Amino acid sequence: MVKIPVLKSITEANALLADAIRARFVQQDVLVLNIIASPGAGKTTLLERTIEKLHGELRLSVIEGDPTTSLDSERIGAAGVPVVQINTDGGCHLEARMIQVALEQLDVEDADVVIIENVGNLLCPTGWDLGEDAKVVVASLPEGDDKPLKYPMAFATAQAVVINKIDLEPYLPAQASVLRQNALRINPDLAVFEVSALTGQGLEGWLGWIRTKLAKKRES
Amino acid sequence: MVKIPVLKSITEANALLADAIRARFVQQDVLVLNIIASPGAGKTTLLERTIEKLHGELRLSVIEGDPTTSLDSERIGAAGVPVVQINTDGGCHLEARMIQVALEQLDVEDADVVIIENVGNLLCPTGWDLGEDAKVVVASLPEGDDKPLKYPMAFATAQAVVINKIDLEPYLPAQASVLRQNALRINPDLAVFEVSALTGQGLEGWLGWIRTKLAKKRES
Repeated sequence: MVKIPVLKSITEANALLADAIRARFVQQDVLVLNIIASPGAGKTTLLERTIEKLHGELRLSVIEGDPTTSLDSERIGAAGVPVVQINTDGGCHLEARMIQVALEQLDVEDADVVIIENVGNLLCPTGWDLGEDAKVVVASLPEGDDKPLKYPMAFATAQAVVINKIDLEPYLPAQASVLRQNALRINPDLAVFEVSALTGQGLEGWLGWIRTKLAKKRES
Repeated sequence: MVKIPVLKSITEANALLADAIRARFVQQDVLVLNIIASPGAGKTTLLERTIEKLHGELRLSVIEGDPTTSLDSERIGAAGVPVVQINTDGGCHLEARMIQVALEQLDVEDADVVIIENVGNLLCPTGWDLGEDAKVVVASLPEGDDKPLKYPMAFATAQAVVINKIDLEPYLPAQASVLRQNALRINPDLAVFEVSALTGQGLEGWLGWIRTKLAKKRES
């Protein structure tokens, strides 16, 4: 008897497609990161700095998710790496089927790392697997140090948190150390980095984490 | 022949229920505001300051939307006004049916203004009418001055924008004047206020707008 696959829901179909994408990335030895954050947390600026710092060492490609514009992909294109823009037409998250289409436009065989910048939203993107190796949350310190408690899903499903805009700490009621503690309360396995993507402060830990993740993937 | 109402979609059912809620608020002469913002834009702090400043002048009630915790409603309860918490269990927006249930717990006949603090999200809440008189966007300056261009729906459907955290302007690449211009590019009818809910700077314009909206509703 032939076994007929029955897809019970959109998210189940998404998970199957994400697994197929992940299998393809394993074959190609490419590390894939899915960056999740609130609007304006500094995802694109972090990406620009990451591209600059890893230039000449690792080959990066970027998939940019945005509700309407291509403002971010223009910034990433100007930084000198291959980039594909996905506009969700107001939709609040990326899905695996969008990544599948984007990959047709992006020559990932030449890449070491593919970074997916998700739509600015701390809730919806957490439930949608895109075939990534790891989700990374960018948490902007001016948003407050209580965000892991209020939006636990993003932190529970991530492997790393980049606390951004720490250059503003002297002027804020929020503290990076409290944000770090709250993130680790939700998920003790998180790697936590404190950076200012604007000034470049603290980026080495984050870059080292990317290098280690890639090396481990290639060993296995 | 009896006309049978056919609800074509969840959002259509939501719109009908929202209209019923709005009709009830008209009868009761209550102004209802639906506050929309990214996580950590300062909605709750703005509410705390608004409650303080209008104390003894207007009777406020608050409906708090949050994905998981009751941290915000505890702050609002401590500020001394009636508050009901709606936890969306990870859901990315409030819906009219949730407001209907909340209103059973809240004695709005005694209120002049009901403020609904939506879930922290600039995308999903914009499509869901809650029976409010006006949507208000809180836009935090550290998120950048390009947010109206990247998340136009929130600004297009709002009547007012409160630019918050302007005390941080000297330390940011973003400018309040540019954020204002970008918001007005999306929606020229917006009332725009520049405030720091933390320091209290600039709140008078916002409070005056609430007073005028309430007076106009009661005149009509």
